[in-house]
Amino acid sequence: MSILVLGGAGYIGSHAVYQLIDQGYDVVVIDNLQTGHRDALHPNAHFYEGDIRNREFMRSVFEKETIEGIIHFAANSLVGESMVEPLKYYDNNVFGTQVVLETMKEFGVKNIVFSSTAAVYGEQKVMPITEEADTRPANTYGETKLAMEKMMAWCEKGFGIHYAALRYFNVAGARSGGEIGEDHNPETHLIPVILEAALGKRPAITVFGEDYETEDGTCVRDYIHVEDLIDAHILALKYLQNGGESNYFNLGSSLGFSVKEMIETAKAVTGLEIPVQMGERRSGDPSTLIASSEKAKQVLGWIPSRTSIEQIIKDAWNWHKHHPNGYQN
Amino acid sequence: MSILVLGGAGYIGSHAVYQLIDQGYDVVVIDNLQTGHRDALHPNAHFYEGDIRNREFMRSVFEKETIEGIIHFAANSLVGESMVEPLKYYDNNVFGTQVVLETMKEFGVKNIVFSSTAAVYGEQKVMPITEEADTRPANTYGETKLAMEKMMAWCEKGFGIHYAALRYFNVAGARSGGEIGEDHNPETHLIPVILEAALGKRPAITVFGEDYETEDGTCVRDYIHVEDLIDAHILALKYLQNGGESNYFNLGSSLGFSVKEMIETAKAVTGLEIPVQMGERRSGDPSTLIASSEKAKQVLGWIPSRTSIEQIIKDAWNWHKHHPNGYQN
Repeated sequence: MSILVLGGAGYIGSHAVYQLIDQGYDVVVIDNLQTGHRDALHPNAHFYEGDIRNREFMRSVFEKETIEGIIHFAANSLVGESMVEPLKYYDNNVFGTQVVLETMKEFGVKNIVFSSTAAVYGEQKVMPITEEADTRPANTYGETKLAMEKMMAWCEKGFGIHYAALRYFNVAGARSGGEIGEDHNPETHLIPVILEAALGKRPAITVFGEDYETEDGTCVRDYIHVEDLIDAHILALKYLQNGGESNYFNLGSSLGFSVKEMIETAKAVTGLEIPVQMGERRSGDPSTLIASSEKAKQVLGWIPSRTSIEQIIKDAWNWHKHHPNGYQN
Repeated sequence: MSILVLGGAGYIGSHAVYQLIDQGYDVVVIDNLQTGHRDALHPNAHFYEGDIRNREFMRSVFEKETIEGIIHFAANSLVGESMVEPLKYYDNNVFGTQVVLETMKEFGVKNIVFSSTAAVYGEQKVMPITEEADTRPANTYGETKLAMEKMMAWCEKGFGIHYAALRYFNVAGARSGGEIGEDHNPETHLIPVILEAALGKRPAITVFGEDYETEDGTCVRDYIHVEDLIDAHILALKYLQNGGESNYFNLGSSLGFSVKEMIETAKAVTGLEIPVQMGERRSGDPSTLIASSEKAKQVLGWIPSRTSIEQIIKDAWNWHKHHPNGYQN
């Protein structure tokens, strides 16, 4: 019996594969390698290169393998791109998930854990954000993730799947062993961008707005170590396999750090100068986003253990300094 | 320049085609004839048999025809079926609409009017329901229609389409000329079911619950004549073509009639006995649903003219008594 990881060559998916294999699971990976990296694949995973939207391909994998549960990371996730190419996001994220669910139905696979996002909440006044907050996405990316959640809920009523939707806040860091890390193209995540500036791979880190209503005027976000995040996925899968009811959970550290604090911490961790330039606010950036993750702790028994921002940046730096060009070495 | 009607062989779509042609429009129809009827097609429409989910087929039609606007009725719409086959509804309604929008983008077609539903509102306490009410669908059908609305909104931001989402209450009646009418398989709509009982084609009409908090204990609904409904579609298309901003509108008569009132009126219109049997409540049936259609009246200048329930049943009866087997004659 295997766990199928969809998008297992991507940043978060590859960390899931490593941690599942660490824990003794047999792992099957599907990835179309559009944004994932062949070198991020764990050597012991059974890898199938292909697209979740391809029904024949999906069926062929389910025929060959015995799948006991699915962790689904295969999606596009760039907010800016989602605003100019909305149909790409509907196709990859919503239609792609539809085909995953069709295949689960056909082969009688019942349990799926999947990546949702804090972007389903949009702008919120009350912090920290609990799962009870209204969902009102402010971009197409968040809308397609919310559509995936809704589709899961109707499929549960229709033919009895069980799902756990995990709403990520800012995922960061890298595997502590150093084998894999973060490499996006384009890179839009704060920590890699800061570290690229430290490495001289970009002239400076641009801070988008310093007049927010926060302590130092820059945006405050909730960073979660990718290894803590994956722990929650594996716990969620066990929870479903033990008969837990379908549910959704925020995943964050419940701590907020400003952009300036992140840059200062990165300076301390790397011992390098990090050139900073000030830019305009970006539309759609809320000033503060902090998760309440009490529900995941209570229901799943999740205990995040790498919540210090120094640890997150240290692990990211360990990857970036050894892979200054990411997987293109 | 033509108007493309998607689902133009269905109950509502065929009425749209007839009324568009009445008004001098050139009309192109796409229908896969899964629930539509070849005999419901207007003889002067350019008909293409095929599926909106088929990208190559859609592209071939847009290459041959010059489309100035689209009215989109091609969807599955059975609430009960949507609960047991949710993915069929995601595929036909959500993915189908995605392909329509992809094709519009590719060919630069900007304006689309489409059928949404009162089911996007789910259970509501305040009657009549305005467009400001929260959307919280209580079934997969309503969820997929809401997903279509959201997709349209992100595509407007992404590449500038203009849309009008028309949220139907209970559509009923038939073309006053008698050429076309309502023929569903299975038939789940109240008026056809009542008339089938009048014709002896079914033993009785089952009333699902007579202990609702309404005047006579049976459910109260808002019935709108299909010809009035289509008038609103053509006005919405003109509104978009004249630069009106994307919008959504309830379409109903703003009047409520109970199931018992409908049966009594049908007895008077047909002059026939109509056997009635009492049944249990169905889950998910709200006691009362009445639309406020003020917005459509004010913004589109819509004036429904066939709001008497006698007129609606009379026109339906005119079709049913001449077509006791629907289009299977």
